[in-house]
Amino acid sequence: MTLKVSDIGEFELIDRIRRIIDGAGYKPGLLIHGIGDDAAVFTPEPGFEMVVTCDSMVEGRHYLKAHMTAIEVGRRAMVMNISDIGAMGGIPLYALVTLGLTSLETVHEIEEIYRGFIQELEPFNASIIGGNITKTAGNTFIDITLIGKANRGHIALRSGAKPGDAIMVTGYPGSSGAGYRLIVDGLAQSLADKTLMDAYLRPAHRAREGHELAVSGLISSMMDVSDGLPGDLYHICETSSIGAELWEEMLPVSNALNETSAMYKISPVDFILAPSDDYELLFTCVPQNIEKLERILAEFGCPVTHIGDIVPIAQGMTLIKKNGKRKPLNKKGWDHFTTV
Amino acid sequence: MTLKVSDIGEFELIDRIRRIIDGAGYKPGLLIHGIGDDAAVFTPEPGFEMVVTCDSMVEGRHYLKAHMTAIEVGRRAMVMNISDIGAMGGIPLYALVTLGLTSLETVHEIEEIYRGFIQELEPFNASIIGGNITKTAGNTFIDITLIGKANRGHIALRSGAKPGDAIMVTGYPGSSGAGYRLIVDGLAQSLADKTLMDAYLRPAHRAREGHELAVSGLISSMMDVSDGLPGDLYHICETSSIGAELWEEMLPVSNALNETSAMYKISPVDFILAPSDDYELLFTCVPQNIEKLERILAEFGCPVTHIGDIVPIAQGMTLIKKNGKRKPLNKKGWDHFTTV
Repeated sequence: MTLKVSDIGEFELIDRIRRIIDGAGYKPGLLIHGIGDDAAVFTPEPGFEMVVTCDSMVEGRHYLKAHMTAIEVGRRAMVMNISDIGAMGGIPLYALVTLGLTSLETVHEIEEIYRGFIQELEPFNASIIGGNITKTAGNTFIDITLIGKANRGHIALRSGAKPGDAIMVTGYPGSSGAGYRLIVDGLAQSLADKTLMDAYLRPAHRAREGHELAVSGLISSMMDVSDGLPGDLYHICETSSIGAELWEEMLPVSNALNETSAMYKISPVDFILAPSDDYELLFTCVPQNIEKLERILAEFGCPVTHIGDIVPIAQGMTLIKKNGKRKPLNKKGWDHFTTV
Repeated sequence: MTLKVSDIGEFELIDRIRRIIDGAGYKPGLLIHGIGDDAAVFTPEPGFEMVVTCDSMVEGRHYLKAHMTAIEVGRRAMVMNISDIGAMGGIPLYALVTLGLTSLETVHEIEEIYRGFIQELEPFNASIIGGNITKTAGNTFIDITLIGKANRGHIALRSGAKPGDAIMVTGYPGSSGAGYRLIVDGLAQSLADKTLMDAYLRPAHRAREGHELAVSGLISSMMDVSDGLPGDLYHICETSSIGAELWEEMLPVSNALNETSAMYKISPVDFILAPSDDYELLFTCVPQNIEKLERILAEFGCPVTHIGDIVPIAQGMTLIKKNGKRKPLNKKGWDHFTTV
């Protein structure tokens, strides 16, 4: 018999989750008190700043249950949050997890989701210290608050970009968005290269890279690509009060994206500039730091591309096409409510 | 025209929320970076521990939109979390808020919910430093992570109760549960006394009292009453490895609860021992500390009652009835999934 959440109730479910968490290898030293009280208690290390983020996934919207194992659902939710901490230059420490359940989920599924969380946290010696479970009549949801630490004075904000800075991006933005489209169109199976599908279903974060970039002191601003390249670049433009030029010719295109774009008979750039949650790093730096930063990222085997330049705010955001023409860039990335 | 969330989209909504938060009086000193980046950044004060909790409310289940203003919805959600921090002996500092919206909510409603959050945070000079908004197809939900500080070494856990300790409770547990029943039965209007309805719709926390009790060093365990008296007492019994005796005769009964119980032709005790989220404090202490603790609480105008004693674990949890008979106490409080 498959055990449903409604068969065992909230307290038994929390007990099972606690056993999974307690079974994980790392026992946090800074933690004074974890799961099982009104609140978790911890004390930070001297010399570090605390960094905290929260992000949520709703079934059907942020993850496709039919195409993912429960462990992958858990990993994806945690990666979203780890990516945010890394994009600030931080390292994850403690997570609090809220689950909104309909009570029809199987107990096994929930346990697997927690195992997915832990798979992503353990490499950082980070752990789950609290949370809550609530009943919802709608879509299952996962909401995670992640608390991290960053070296004092080495936090990377969105607000430091200046005209003349280079715009750099890691990896291949647009992969996740293309992968999502392949999945919903039922075309994923027809491709030899599953890279794009994996980019959506099993994304990886660049938190270690982000931490090293922040510690280097060589970057002027940084964020992760979670809404799509133009939407996220717009956030840097807005908070730094600057404009940006992207060069179509320099946008990084993977073989997989080339193949898929050809199949859809569109340009790969259409995927790169569309909403896509790639969890890559978008950062800016003065041009003389590019080489040093490339060397830091090379140690992680992390590709990075110089895709454009920061310009004065009056010039707005533009794409310089391969034919030399300028096209105003749409500042809107992924907007959950107006683009349904 | 009533502006819907779908009319303005996520980014405009976040901008409006930011304006409300920035308009609030208090500007946190410890905060390095708040809303508008991948994560918030803060650094704690020396001499304090950090305390963190998260809790969520789902429309229809944890709040009744038809009976509450949006400000009240926001206040109630924040009170739940402030109560958890206070029950640890902490003082709230920073909140992160996740909203799950269907996009049919009005913009005004969302803004009012945030005003409600701020009304509860401002007395503590606490503020909202981040969060996220997500789309859901089901019930609207609010998930809050609240981070607080507590004096180093003065944190109140559930685990310190010992046989011989007195069991104490503030206020009148059962009020919120009775109020909820009056509302869903449509009987609230027939009563002169609206205390019970208010206990459910507009609950107050005892965080300041909780902080003072923890700082006093005179208590052995503490938690807030959010699931109902027996369910929460069970948590203390379980984590402290002890049993408990409650005296029916000593349970605090308000005039309002007497009146409502008479109307339902049941004993007020049935409400007091039923699921009820009262946000009162349940704590234990050695008997010689009772008087000092009563004096501390009297300064807040906070009623407190000695309702029973901690006994060895072998005796379990029992209620001593007015006729002297013992009745095993049901250890289950409110369980979201098995009691639908």
